[in-house]
Amino acid sequence: MPITTPPRLLLGPGPSNAHPRVLEAMAHPLVGHLDPSFLELMDEVQDRLRGLFGTRNEMTLPLSAPGSAGMEACLANLLEPGDDVVVGVHGVFGGRMCEVSSRIGARVTRVESEMGTPLDVSAMADAIARVRPRVVAFVHAETSTGVLQPVPEIAAAAHDAGSFVVLDCVTSLAGLPLELDAWGVDAAYSGTQKCLSCPPGLSPVSFSERAVTRVRERERPVQSWFLDVGLLAGYFGGERVYHHTAPISAVYALAEGLRVVDEEGLAERTRRHRAASRHLIESLAPLGFEPLVEEGFRLPPLTTLRLPAAVVERGEADVRRSLLLDHGIEVGGGLGKLAGTIWRIGLMGENAREANVERLVAALRATLT
Amino acid sequence: MPITTPPRLLLGPGPSNAHPRVLEAMAHPLVGHLDPSFLELMDEVQDRLRGLFGTRNEMTLPLSAPGSAGMEACLANLLEPGDDVVVGVHGVFGGRMCEVSSRIGARVTRVESEMGTPLDVSAMADAIARVRPRVVAFVHAETSTGVLQPVPEIAAAAHDAGSFVVLDCVTSLAGLPLELDAWGVDAAYSGTQKCLSCPPGLSPVSFSERAVTRVRERERPVQSWFLDVGLLAGYFGGERVYHHTAPISAVYALAEGLRVVDEEGLAERTRRHRAASRHLIESLAPLGFEPLVEEGFRLPPLTTLRLPAAVVERGEADVRRSLLLDHGIEVGGGLGKLAGTIWRIGLMGENAREANVERLVAALRATLT
Repeated sequence: MPITTPPRLLLGPGPSNAHPRVLEAMAHPLVGHLDPSFLELMDEVQDRLRGLFGTRNEMTLPLSAPGSAGMEACLANLLEPGDDVVVGVHGVFGGRMCEVSSRIGARVTRVESEMGTPLDVSAMADAIARVRPRVVAFVHAETSTGVLQPVPEIAAAAHDAGSFVVLDCVTSLAGLPLELDAWGVDAAYSGTQKCLSCPPGLSPVSFSERAVTRVRERERPVQSWFLDVGLLAGYFGGERVYHHTAPISAVYALAEGLRVVDEEGLAERTRRHRAASRHLIESLAPLGFEPLVEEGFRLPPLTTLRLPAAVVERGEADVRRSLLLDHGIEVGGGLGKLAGTIWRIGLMGENAREANVERLVAALRATLT
Repeated sequence: MPITTPPRLLLGPGPSNAHPRVLEAMAHPLVGHLDPSFLELMDEVQDRLRGLFGTRNEMTLPLSAPGSAGMEACLANLLEPGDDVVVGVHGVFGGRMCEVSSRIGARVTRVESEMGTPLDVSAMADAIARVRPRVVAFVHAETSTGVLQPVPEIAAAAHDAGSFVVLDCVTSLAGLPLELDAWGVDAAYSGTQKCLSCPPGLSPVSFSERAVTRVRERERPVQSWFLDVGLLAGYFGGERVYHHTAPISAVYALAEGLRVVDEEGLAERTRRHRAASRHLIESLAPLGFEPLVEEGFRLPPLTTLRLPAAVVERGEADVRRSLLLDHGIEVGGGLGKLAGTIWRIGLMGENAREANVERLVAALRATLT
């Protein structure tokens, strides 16, 4: 009895549709996680991830769990109980960073800004200078609001205070240029199911040498054995010692997904994401959808739009349901405070194409009339 | 450029080869993790897992990370810092349970037995009665030694002391009958890459109602947001609230793998595993391989064999390398104290067939002469 889930155009906040070559790679027969042929593939994956992250960090690797685990890995390795962390919160995922940090036992200072706006850089800098925290954490690409947060100034303030910088790049990796090394980011995490056009399940992460040194000098071991970068280094560093069994098929998929990205080139891919998002905003304006985020801070892979009265009156969840069940198109609703008032429309990776915008607009017109 | 890893017969400690139908399922296009069609499939997966675990536990689900994370999930949910845990250690994975528990901040009492032997039930019962720990943890199927540990007596001693029982079923689920409810196991974890013949990456876990209640009554939140069963219940219970993005393709694979298991039936599958392992031991005896584990405690999916002089003299790692590179067959070396002195040969899931034994024996004869 084969899997019979129906065809979907995935224009929500993720997963996006996987590239056909990625799906084909998933079906390739398994080898062992210590097989020389697999280790060679893992080298390639780590190297291509370094390119997309804009880093030379040796500890750049696909963590064997989703982006939320990547977030936890970055924070749990760098924070010890009692440490201070300043978290910039401009959406749900910044809020999650606070929750994760507080469970680690860290003292959390939240610097909030309105959902839909970027962080206030001077408020962040003030908090950092005052608290001088172990870690400064914030979100580059807020999937809950569609805000793209500028990084360098906040990272510089963090370094002035001797802090480590943790950055959420879940919805930016492979859709926009990242420059971890130039920006001074010490630990970053992403997901495979957004701009990489791979299935969900892995979290590409990168740790600077300074971060890895810090992990090795901790007073208490990292609370999670599974996420301890010191132990992960045994497998993902040069020695290839068994830690846990790598998810072979997901790594095949990521390897192929990364090849597709590199064949296109990140510059062209970035241009394509920007063009598709612009086209989306222009095409939905006549229907009354208005961008939530000010120009200049919009996240091309994920556009957030305030809903027109026609959609609110019909019940926005019902309209989305009709798009999904009658037209095979998934778009995302709002999260947290924005639930019921916005949609989140992802044009990520392979899906960032004007033809997909046309399809969505046609389906929406049909649904609303 | 397609994935080009070579064909391998995976007779190591895992991964085993995925069933062709499972590989095909992996290539099925994605849907969203909240899509009704996916939630229906998830219901089916959870239900079939209950069948294999021998439980009615609602919180039976495929955790979105490998078996090591499943171990951590079971222990981190049930243990708070300062809690006592008694761990039965008869191999590397029992040792890992100690390490994981100690990182959680629990006080660990180790009850060790020689690698290759089962736990001493009365030593376990004594320690449990003395310590009266929050949790008693041990390994049903020790992948490092090939020992199958009887469960009911130790579980009963744990319940007499008011403790929760955590059981590692990584190499037993879908290869042997499990009876979590009848045995009184409160939390168990497994992996997909062994007897289920799926790719590695997910950890089927099950938590009793008593365990879930305990998690909800904790003084401090679970240290891991990603692994918190109270939060996971939002998605894997009835409400289907977003927690993290489920790994769609891996769940497709697991769904298909579980269908294959249920079509065969666990009784026949168990018989097949037993027959294949017996055939392996008999076929390698003439070459001088001797079972490490006493009859009655052998784990059919994973057989451990002491190496004959001919293999030791040739260098056991070199012989394994030749099996892999010249014959396309992977077998596993010893872990920990047993490194260099035993092999671990997995006949798991689809691979538990006499024809695979014949192929291994022929390759081994060719390599050694």
